[in-house]
Amino acid sequence: MKDPKLDRLRELVGEVDDLRKAATLLFWDQRVMMPPGGAQARAEASATVGRLAHQKFVSPELGKLLDELDEGDYDYDSFEASLIRVTKRDYEKAVRVPPELTGEMRRSSALALSAWGPAKQSSDFQALLPHLERNLELRHRYVECFPPPDETYDVLLDDYEPLMKTAEVREVFDELKRELLPLIEEIGEAGEVDSSFLQGDFDVSAQRDFSMKILRAFGYTDDEWRLDQTAHPFMTSPGGGDIRLTTNFRPNDISSIFGSVHEFGHGVYEWGVDPSLQRTPLGSGVSLALHESQSRSWENLVGRSRAFWRHFYPELQQTFAAQLGSVDEEAFYRAVNKVHPSLIRIDADEVTYNMHIILRFELEQDLIDNRLEPKDLPGAWSARMDEYLGVDVPDDARGVLQDMHWAGGSIGYFPTYSLGNVISVQIWERLKEDVGDVDEQMERTCSGASSRRRRRSSA
Amino acid sequence: MKDPKLDRLRELVGEVDDLRKAATLLFWDQRVMMPPGGAQARAEASATVGRLAHQKFVSPELGKLLDELDEGDYDYDSFEASLIRVTKRDYEKAVRVPPELTGEMRRSSALALSAWGPAKQSSDFQALLPHLERNLELRHRYVECFPPPDETYDVLLDDYEPLMKTAEVREVFDELKRELLPLIEEIGEAGEVDSSFLQGDFDVSAQRDFSMKILRAFGYTDDEWRLDQTAHPFMTSPGGGDIRLTTNFRPNDISSIFGSVHEFGHGVYEWGVDPSLQRTPLGSGVSLALHESQSRSWENLVGRSRAFWRHFYPELQQTFAAQLGSVDEEAFYRAVNKVHPSLIRIDADEVTYNMHIILRFELEQDLIDNRLEPKDLPGAWSARMDEYLGVDVPDDARGVLQDMHWAGGSIGYFPTYSLGNVISVQIWERLKEDVGDVDEQMERTCSGASSRRRRRSSA
Repeated sequence: MKDPKLDRLRELVGEVDDLRKAATLLFWDQRVMMPPGGAQARAEASATVGRLAHQKFVSPELGKLLDELDEGDYDYDSFEASLIRVTKRDYEKAVRVPPELTGEMRRSSALALSAWGPAKQSSDFQALLPHLERNLELRHRYVECFPPPDETYDVLLDDYEPLMKTAEVREVFDELKRELLPLIEEIGEAGEVDSSFLQGDFDVSAQRDFSMKILRAFGYTDDEWRLDQTAHPFMTSPGGGDIRLTTNFRPNDISSIFGSVHEFGHGVYEWGVDPSLQRTPLGSGVSLALHESQSRSWENLVGRSRAFWRHFYPELQQTFAAQLGSVDEEAFYRAVNKVHPSLIRIDADEVTYNMHIILRFELEQDLIDNRLEPKDLPGAWSARMDEYLGVDVPDDARGVLQDMHWAGGSIGYFPTYSLGNVISVQIWERLKEDVGDVDEQMERTCSGASSRRRRRSSA
Repeated sequence: MKDPKLDRLRELVGEVDDLRKAATLLFWDQRVMMPPGGAQARAEASATVGRLAHQKFVSPELGKLLDELDEGDYDYDSFEASLIRVTKRDYEKAVRVPPELTGEMRRSSALALSAWGPAKQSSDFQALLPHLERNLELRHRYVECFPPPDETYDVLLDDYEPLMKTAEVREVFDELKRELLPLIEEIGEAGEVDSSFLQGDFDVSAQRDFSMKILRAFGYTDDEWRLDQTAHPFMTSPGGGDIRLTTNFRPNDISSIFGSVHEFGHGVYEWGVDPSLQRTPLGSGVSLALHESQSRSWENLVGRSRAFWRHFYPELQQTFAAQLGSVDEEAFYRAVNKVHPSLIRIDADEVTYNMHIILRFELEQDLIDNRLEPKDLPGAWSARMDEYLGVDVPDDARGVLQDMHWAGGSIGYFPTYSLGNVISVQIWERLKEDVGDVDEQMERTCSGASSRRRRRSSA
């Protein structure tokens, strides 16, 4: 890099990135470590760090640098052109939003997230409602910062899936809906797969050990990764070389295994970022859908495959002999791939999962376009669950309170999950074309950690 | 508060406090949770957050407000006068130091702390040496920001013990030395107390459970406290209502109990801060010596008292029956109060402890006044350990590498430990005068948690 302006740009975005990393840690800690008494102070700290990151990013100096720098001076795919292009795109959005609003959205999210846990626990929608109303009000103010879009939802979606339009998502989802609804019905009529043995008594620390065994085979190492327990699993990275997975180890099922594998997919995507891109807007996944394509690939295309379980099932069976001793590999494989409409998105099978997302995508548009008030969410939720999946919602804990996204202020995030599903299969199809015997290779080499380590250290 | 200038001052210091809380969390996480791979990114994030906190604090607006506000308009002890006075004192120091230097000190500390752990593990002083040299160089630059002091060390000391002078510390320490050296000799000649049963096999998770039992009796609750394992214990609070203790649970002794009780003393001091002082420079302990007086009171005056162990010993004995089954309460009490010169400061008894501090206090002055180079620290350390305690230092892990303070860049911190010891006994003497039967009350009521909770919620 010869241009001193580019060096200076890099310094400035590096500082913003540092603040975002601090914000990431404040969030991770709140969800995983913080005693509840810290909620108010954490909300203030998150608001201030978020607001300052924003203020720093929209500084006049950075704006002037971006005006003066021309990505056309470099190859499109070069680091330089990419840095200028992506920073400009982010800057042009950020400069429209008052830092006070960013700070306020952070504070409100942090407080709402602290309220969400207890509200879900006691299935008390009213306890979360004022927070949801406040979050929605702030998103309305956010949307108003931008020129009138084709659809209001476009503005929110763009934060998670840059450059994608609501209409494009709708098109994908309409096709999914068209194919999935009859398929779900057909599968329902084909008769039950027995999965009763997946419910029962599964020692939580044995589950954790088993997850760790799988993750280590995938490439998890103690010097760059963590795995912690949390109510609502997520992955985040508060710095290069610091990948944090979370899983919910539940005593009555082994869904934690698929949760861990899912979050590993997110983690390894971040882990694979070229270290030279750290402290720039290029140092993370390009979009949430692509991120989710990685987690869903690992969870569903690897973690629910015959090849994977041919390797790991004997050990799982031994670990949970009382539950699985008499269940053969094929029966287990069928059970973990069973399609059955259910209440909880994160536990849903591959086929019905997308209907959970479509439901949320539609409700979010109704909310942001004022066709639906937050207070009416539980009713609207139940009606659509019945329509799409034929499932009765017994309480809000297993309905509208199940996910933390709306409490966290994220509207426009959900559709990226289904887009990720679609992308994951597209990539997998291509992988099979290019590689051929994917399953055979996977079965043979479920411990590629050392070769991946080598690649990285030579980077 | 009627003065809008005071309101604005409060807003500005609140923002600075938020950043300091974020920095606190970055530090806690680095010591307790972060995988080592995150060290570089964490150093950058810590540097940026530290620098911004500094920049925000020395902003012209804040300086102007402090010029215009007069603490004389309020009672000396009022919130208003105290806020103005303490903020002015901090401001006048901070404004002399370039934010870049603050950031650089943070970055250098974070990197050095990451190097310290492995260096101590392998007793490799050379691995830490460049970091110590860098830290010292930055402290020299820091000292130069201030008008020439009576002694160079005054500038550093003032950060930990505001307004105290090196000469005053020396006076206290000279008296301690005069009294302690003959006392240590005398005790040495009086014959050994048997404490052999304190070394052995102590299940780590049983130790943790026992620490938790004591802490809960003191007032620890899950909604506002955490206790974690770390190599070098400390307490910190990344927000009001969020008190984090750390302890080192070692498999071969039960020193963790005293460590937990010590850190609880720090924790309860922070916990007791009036919530109305949060997000101001008044919302924390007034000085490190006073902080340490609390931890040392709990560790030594409570935790090594007959009354305390009359309550807790039966249960400890039951928990570690193989080790302590045949040891009676009096023998245990004498063993945990045994005076014997030893290598490690944090394991030292009450009498020899202060000599460990005096040694560090003297070496620190030699370092900052250039009478001693960092590379010569191990030799100087050994010589003084021999002189003061008659102890041979077998390796640097048990010598100059044992503490993290110098790696963390803290020079001037150590003397506050011994000052804290002195203050703790002064307060205790007064407590005994005022209350009378302290021991009897303690023996009866080693579970005052609920009454303390009530006090707080009515505050």
